[in-house]
Amino acid sequence: MKVALIQQKYYGSREKTIEYSKNRVAEAARSGAKLVCLQELHTREYFCQSELVDTFDYAEDYQKDIEFFSSVAKECEVVLVSSLFEKRASGLYHNSAIVFEKDGSIAGKYRKMHIPDDPQFYEKFYFTPGDIGFEPIDTSVGRLGVLICWDQWYPEAARLMALSGASILIYPTAIGWFDDDSFEEKKRQKEAWMAVQRGHAVANGVFVCAINRVGFEEDSSDKNRGIRFWGSSFVYGPQGEEIAIGSEDGEEILYFDYDQKRVEDVRRIWPFFRDRRIDAYGEITKRYRD
Amino acid sequence: MKVALIQQKYYGSREKTIEYSKNRVAEAARSGAKLVCLQELHTREYFCQSELVDTFDYAEDYQKDIEFFSSVAKECEVVLVSSLFEKRASGLYHNSAIVFEKDGSIAGKYRKMHIPDDPQFYEKFYFTPGDIGFEPIDTSVGRLGVLICWDQWYPEAARLMALSGASILIYPTAIGWFDDDSFEEKKRQKEAWMAVQRGHAVANGVFVCAINRVGFEEDSSDKNRGIRFWGSSFVYGPQGEEIAIGSEDGEEILYFDYDQKRVEDVRRIWPFFRDRRIDAYGEITKRYRD
Repeated sequence: MKVALIQQKYYGSREKTIEYSKNRVAEAARSGAKLVCLQELHTREYFCQSELVDTFDYAEDYQKDIEFFSSVAKECEVVLVSSLFEKRASGLYHNSAIVFEKDGSIAGKYRKMHIPDDPQFYEKFYFTPGDIGFEPIDTSVGRLGVLICWDQWYPEAARLMALSGASILIYPTAIGWFDDDSFEEKKRQKEAWMAVQRGHAVANGVFVCAINRVGFEEDSSDKNRGIRFWGSSFVYGPQGEEIAIGSEDGEEILYFDYDQKRVEDVRRIWPFFRDRRIDAYGEITKRYRD
Repeated sequence: MKVALIQQKYYGSREKTIEYSKNRVAEAARSGAKLVCLQELHTREYFCQSELVDTFDYAEDYQKDIEFFSSVAKECEVVLVSSLFEKRASGLYHNSAIVFEKDGSIAGKYRKMHIPDDPQFYEKFYFTPGDIGFEPIDTSVGRLGVLICWDQWYPEAARLMALSGASILIYPTAIGWFDDDSFEEKKRQKEAWMAVQRGHAVANGVFVCAINRVGFEEDSSDKNRGIRFWGSSFVYGPQGEEIAIGSEDGEEILYFDYDQKRVEDVRRIWPFFRDRRIDAYGEITKRYRD
């Protein structure tokens, strides 16, 4: 089955940006993709660079966004992974991935469980941590382990999705550099980001893909230095093998063949699930073993 | 603090092999190493290529091995991580790492928790899975997260050691290729082995090192094709940065500087422990979520 990852930039407004995304989804569908994945919070700029109460207005578009991407999925006849700013109630918002069936219906939702808070990634201000757990989403193209960005640093999230039968993990992402960081620091950060997710692929015998934003975005509060999103969307196979890696600075559609038989084959030679010491893992649920 | 990893081959007998190891530990100590780590089951050939009851005789040397490596640690004044075939009772054996203090006393023991069983890696025949859990070992050079080979595929083991305050993970290892595997398969296997452990370094903000056997070893039962151990012992830093990688086919002592401040610095910019969803990880202790 052909899968497409849409790596794109922000086009200065919601309208232009979602129009661009729609055209890319259509292009991917024409190329034969049955599953198309968009990046994190893809309808807007990455707005968490500063803490501004007015930005919650963006979440007022949540229902409109759902209607729009539902129609895109239906028109293009693809399963579509979107990433939206969910308003649940006044003062209660989530960073959520909505998965649409190829008929436009909602196949399922995932609410980002791990919420970062670093300088210019002030997500704890905007998003309540997810409360619907690590549950894969069943679709006509298979059971999808949809997680979001900061979740990618947590082996527990990947493991729980794999133990629930997801044989592909999909991470819509918005991660980038500050221009004043050194070349070496930038290299370490990007390699770490790829390495930890490649590790999830190996440990669980699953496909892992990340769809990352690209391009430089200024901070809308004008207080900060802006973020250069590093693209480099990727796919690793169930043995951790490199399947596709996108460019650091350009828009791109990455395609790959999602072959479930490969999962079966790899797990037969490396049956890690067989030997898990579930009798000895209990303290994983402690904050710290002190 | 300077650390040394001794990557070596098997010298045809226990006596020659441990003599070689002793000389390398002494060399590392002269070079200033305070912590020296040996590979998995380093006193012998990798004997799990076949299932032979007579091989249990090797474990009769367990006490002698302890005395020998205790004296090596004491003479060289280093903390020494060894990996031995432990006889606990008739019919009850473990694959165990013994850590010696620089005065020759035993600092602690780890019994391999995850036991593989693949063609020519028939460890389930020889070793009972460990029953003393994932507990780091306190030494005069720090708290060491000692794990063994097959454990390296399990993020849970790495996590539990890190949550117990280990800021370095040490994996004595015996992993290799079959010569009749394709170049591509060999590449995937070795890269997967490195990737999953690099992932542990990133996810936990710890140093990770593996000490692997090198050289071709025939199967002593003459039934099988032998294993070519791929060396490539390595060290990754707490941001997953590559610090040292050994050769695929030669003996080597790898040195690196174990800088605990680096752990502190990396965890300040990437505080993954802060955001773990321990409320939602409970099902990690299930065999499968079905």
